[in-house]
Amino acid sequence: MSDGFSLDPRLAGDTVLVADGPLSQLRLMDDARFPWLVLVPRLPGAEEWLDLDGDAQRLLLAEINLAGRALRALGPVHKLNIGALGNIVRQLHVHVVARREGDAAWPGPVWGSGPAQRYDATAREDLLARLRDRVAG
Amino acid sequence: MSDGFSLDPRLAGDTVLVADGPLSQLRLMDDARFPWLVLVPRLPGAEEWLDLDGDAQRLLLAEINLAGRALRALGPVHKLNIGALGNIVRQLHVHVVARREGDAAWPGPVWGSGPAQRYDATAREDLLARLRDRVAG
Repeated sequence: MSDGFSLDPRLAGDTVLVADGPLSQLRLMDDARFPWLVLVPRLPGAEEWLDLDGDAQRLLLAEINLAGRALRALGPVHKLNIGALGNIVRQLHVHVVARREGDAAWPGPVWGSGPAQRYDATAREDLLARLRDRVAG
Repeated sequence: MSDGFSLDPRLAGDTVLVADGPLSQLRLMDDARFPWLVLVPRLPGAEEWLDLDGDAQRLLLAEINLAGRALRALGPVHKLNIGALGNIVRQLHVHVVARREGDAAWPGPVWGSGPAQRYDATAREDLLARLRDRVAG
C-alpha cells in the first residue's frame, strides 16, 4: 500500500518510473552519462535506511540486488556504486549506478559530478523497455 | 575465519580498526571532518555487494545498522550517508558517514571532498574508546 506516499518533486523531475517493486519504485535517472537506477521505498516519511524495520530493509536489499543485476544485463559494468545519501532530497532513496572506467565522473562519485545529460526520447524509451523486460523476468 | 583476507593497503593507511564484527572489520576513517566508519568484510576477493551470498549480505546489513547507531550515539546526525563505491579501492567496503549541515562537504558527498584532516592522537583514541564501548554494548 502507498497511502500517503508522494514522490519528492526533485526525484520526480530527475527520474522516470521503470516499475514498481514490492517495497519501492524503481526509477531510471534521466542522465545518459551513467546507467543509473534509483529505488524509492513507498513509505511515507521514510528518510533513513536505519529507521526502516527489518522487513523493509530486507525487501530493499532484494530490490538493490535486482537493480544491480538489471544494470549488468545492459552491458559491461566495471564497478557498481550503491549509495543512500539524501543530503539534498531527504526522501529515502537508494542509488545503484553502473560505473565504467573512463565514464564522465570516473573514478569519482556520480553525486556532485555536474549537470545531467538527458537521454533523447528514443534512447530513453528503448532503455526503459529493456529494463522492464529484465525486472519482470 | 579470515583465511586469505588481507586489508587493502590504502584502506589500512586511511582507517584504524575499531572492532571486528561477525563478517567485517569495523574501521574509523582517520578524518576529523566527518564521523565516518568503514565496514570491510573479511572475505578474500570480495568486490561487489551484489556478489555476496544472502547470509553475508544479511550480516553486512546488520553491521551497517550497528555502525549507524554507533555514529548517532556520538552526537547529532542530520543525515547518514551510506555508500559502497570501490572505484579506486576495489576491496569491498561500505562507508557509513554521519553528516551534519554545514560540515566540510555539505551537501555534497564526502567522497572526492578533498584531503583528510587526521585526528590528533588523543582525540582519535578517545573516539575509538567511545565507539568500542558502543559496539560492544
